[in-house]
Amino acid sequence: MQFSSALLETAVNEFAKLPGIGKKTALRMVLHLLKQEASDVQHFSDVVAKMRTEIRFCHRCHNVADADICSICANSMRKQEIICVVENIRDVIALESTQQYSGTYHVLGGVISPLDGIGPSQLNIDTLIHRTQKEETCEVIFALSPTIQGDTTIYYIQKKLPANIKVTTIARGIAFGGELEYADEMTLARSLQNRLPVDSYVSSK
Amino acid sequence: MQFSSALLETAVNEFAKLPGIGKKTALRMVLHLLKQEASDVQHFSDVVAKMRTEIRFCHRCHNVADADICSICANSMRKQEIICVVENIRDVIALESTQQYSGTYHVLGGVISPLDGIGPSQLNIDTLIHRTQKEETCEVIFALSPTIQGDTTIYYIQKKLPANIKVTTIARGIAFGGELEYADEMTLARSLQNRLPVDSYVSSK
Ligand SMILES: [Zn+2]
Ligand SMILES: [Zn+2]
Repeated sequence: MQFSSALLETAVNEFAKLPGIGKKTALRMVLHLLKQEASDVQHFSDVVAKMRTEIRFCHRCHNVADADICSICANSMRKQEIICVVENIRDVIALESTQQYSGTYHVLGGVISPLDGIGPSQLNIDTLIHRTQKEETCEVIFALSPTIQGDTTIYYIQKKLPANIKVTTIARGIAFGGELEYADEMTLARSLQNRLPVDSYVSSK
Repeated sequence: MQFSSALLETAVNEFAKLPGIGKKTALRMVLHLLKQEASDVQHFSDVVAKMRTEIRFCHRCHNVADADICSICANSMRKQEIICVVENIRDVIALESTQQYSGTYHVLGGVISPLDGIGPSQLNIDTLIHRTQKEETCEVIFALSPTIQGDTTIYYIQKKLPANIKVTTIARGIAFGGELEYADEMTLARSLQNRLPVDSYVSSK
């Protein structure tokens, strides 16, 4: 692609670094911004910079936060004794969007995947175990993607949890191999309602 | 979509204002930026703001420019006596990317479309006529989308051009109703090489 403006070219190249964005889409975005009010584009620019500088990760659950502790952990209306274990922040947003869950979360940062070089130590597993020992946790709900790696991760963590805690996994309304974040809100909400004790799930395989 | 961070939500909403970007794609972009180095995100933010503030539009051809006059108009190696008339900046980039054209451009800003309320006065037509009268223009090449509106625009402008100027239109290698910017570079390059006098084109319809 040949640009006749270095300012335009630089901006297009920056947008084209975003995931799934090719040069033509990037150009479309930049030309769109070029047509907006200067103050609106300055706002866009400020919001992006501020987000990256000021966002923090919750000390307790590793979710995104605007303070040391995320708004879910800080909310006394949420059932702090229930922890839903997810892979990433997108999964928290997907589950929150069902408006069916009133417990807390724990963001692992991925699943155990030896082929990708991801072992338990690269994930937020120790902090989860520590949390369940320190807090009065009564239930841990696994909401991991239904893959071999997800199952391996459930199995690994389950063995380390205090014996008195109820351990469940969301019902598999999602096709095996599917990704949690792409499930629709209804499927997610139902699979959360129909959650099963993890023992029955693992033994039924 | 339920976010547990106002910083995250605001950033996602800003990206979701971009054309063709839904909330899920916007979230993916924002989470990608969140994982990048703070300095890289600051750079992204700065580039966007600078682009909007500093980009100008060429006083002569209305193309994007980093100065009063665009780099194509300012380039003495280009044939300044040939003008290729296009609808928008994306079309300039598409034609430049063929690396087959060595003349200049004139960006109309659209085509005459009464149903959309776009008449000749909303387009950069007067400046084109003025240019051809003032400069020693020898050829005007129309590279408009092959639509009824494009043809109407060619017909309207052609009547106003000085009689001694050769007027051509790029060969229609593109399906009628197609959009110029989506044509591949080879089709565009060929249709430019095989350009026709506009009289023969209009009379052959
Ligand atoms: Zn938290
Ligand atoms: Zn120019």
